[in-house]
Amino acid sequence: MRNLLMTISYDGTHYFGFQTQPDGNTIQDHLEAVISQLTGEKVKIHGSGRTDAGVHARGQTFHFLTSSQIPVERWRHALNGRLPSDIRITDAVEVPLEFHSRRYAKRKTYRYSINGNRVFDVFYRQFQLHHPGVLDVQAMRVGLAYLIGTHDYTSFASRHSTKQSHVRTIYEARIEVECGTEGAGTHEQGIIHIYVTGNGFLQHMVRIIVGTLLQVGEGKRAPKDMKSILEAKDRAAAGPTAESKGLMLWKVEYDEVPEIPDITKISQDMSF
Amino acid sequence: MRNLLMTISYDGTHYFGFQTQPDGNTIQDHLEAVISQLTGEKVKIHGSGRTDAGVHARGQTFHFLTSSQIPVERWRHALNGRLPSDIRITDAVEVPLEFHSRRYAKRKTYRYSINGNRVFDVFYRQFQLHHPGVLDVQAMRVGLAYLIGTHDYTSFASRHSTKQSHVRTIYEARIEVECGTEGAGTHEQGIIHIYVTGNGFLQHMVRIIVGTLLQVGEGKRAPKDMKSILEAKDRAAAGPTAESKGLMLWKVEYDEVPEIPDITKISQDMSF
Repeated sequence: MRNLLMTISYDGTHYFGFQTQPDGNTIQDHLEAVISQLTGEKVKIHGSGRTDAGVHARGQTFHFLTSSQIPVERWRHALNGRLPSDIRITDAVEVPLEFHSRRYAKRKTYRYSINGNRVFDVFYRQFQLHHPGVLDVQAMRVGLAYLIGTHDYTSFASRHSTKQSHVRTIYEARIEVECGTEGAGTHEQGIIHIYVTGNGFLQHMVRIIVGTLLQVGEGKRAPKDMKSILEAKDRAAAGPTAESKGLMLWKVEYDEVPEIPDITKISQDMSF
Repeated sequence: MRNLLMTISYDGTHYFGFQTQPDGNTIQDHLEAVISQLTGEKVKIHGSGRTDAGVHARGQTFHFLTSSQIPVERWRHALNGRLPSDIRITDAVEVPLEFHSRRYAKRKTYRYSINGNRVFDVFYRQFQLHHPGVLDVQAMRVGLAYLIGTHDYTSFASRHSTKQSHVRTIYEARIEVECGTEGAGTHEQGIIHIYVTGNGFLQHMVRIIVGTLLQVGEGKRAPKDMKSILEAKDRAAAGPTAESKGLMLWKVEYDEVPEIPDITKISQDMSF
């Protein structure tokens, strides 16, 4: 048996999210189907986490066990040839059997993108929220900073969250503006990218953070309100959940690049 | 009567090109339909030029005559609200009645984008040609330079071109590489953007230039072959027509920003 870790990017526009759903058409369903086609095995993959319907990924990861002897360097090409063009495997490595894409993940980064110009960009229309109204990006930066650290993020989690604990750590959070003239009172604000890196995220967490930060940017809330919202531990204290299309799972990081056992060693393991 | 000049961007993936076709579903059809809806007039628009099926535009222009009294600053929003989301009016100005979007155009720039990485980018899959094979970008630059100037571009025009003269002027042509390690013998070549600026372009001209330059990049032709191909004045001398999806009409430039008559003056004109 071998354990393979793969990195994928996908345009989530036409999918019901990453994880298998009763109604099908998820990223996981497509991946499992093509891996099964390739190997003849019934394979179950394990993602580093879910992404909601319409959310994209630049660097999602998943792992799965297989007894296939296909060399690791051939998987990417073989699977990409069978996958729809909006899902691409970008990397594949062999990892120790105990490795788990979610449990071993140390840092996950999401990016949320907002087009602040008067007219949205047709080429990114499915990857950016359009918000032509003036946003005070500096106030949003100050508000976002209150969320860094280890906190109970209940206020920023879906009411449907089934997690025992809502304590997570946000290591880094920043806002970058591309081609804009921030806060200049103009509608040509450019593209506002919000990056949030943490040890894990609750359901809708980044989208609720963004929905609340947009209220700060619009002047409807003060930046320091982010602190009291956090302390309230109540979903009702925060703002709305921002649209899924602006969200992208940017990257998943592991403590160290997992060991890649050599093919001969694998064959020896197989003989047990 | 007023003459309006508009700038539009569109994702051409799902259209049969800019210009009206018997089978419909062109950018022009959609624009004329929404302008007619808005004004109640039967309007014919005039583009700065055609773009083929699957070709995109960042800054296409068109003009049309209307007797509508809607203030110029309200057109963009009114039309965008009625257009499909892959077509956006980005600018609208009022110009003198004699102004013509094609005849007054002085410089047009096209960009052709090639993804030279092993795996294509899902988010740009409809806007970039995927060419994972190694390309000698420096050789492509040398080859491209032979095309600058005033020449008969018959070798780089579709055999179906109906133009009387194939003489055009290319003012500038350059290649820019984004996030790549050019010519380093690696497949991670980044994104190669080819920009060509001229006074006008023949049918398929940029795509045939790119198809031929790719052969130079692959080492199948020498850079100086571009000169003899040009001199041959024979379509058969050049390489294949590169796929439409990598091509984008980047911008259309006019000698001077056309005069924008003031609304009062227009009303006086109307009284004649």
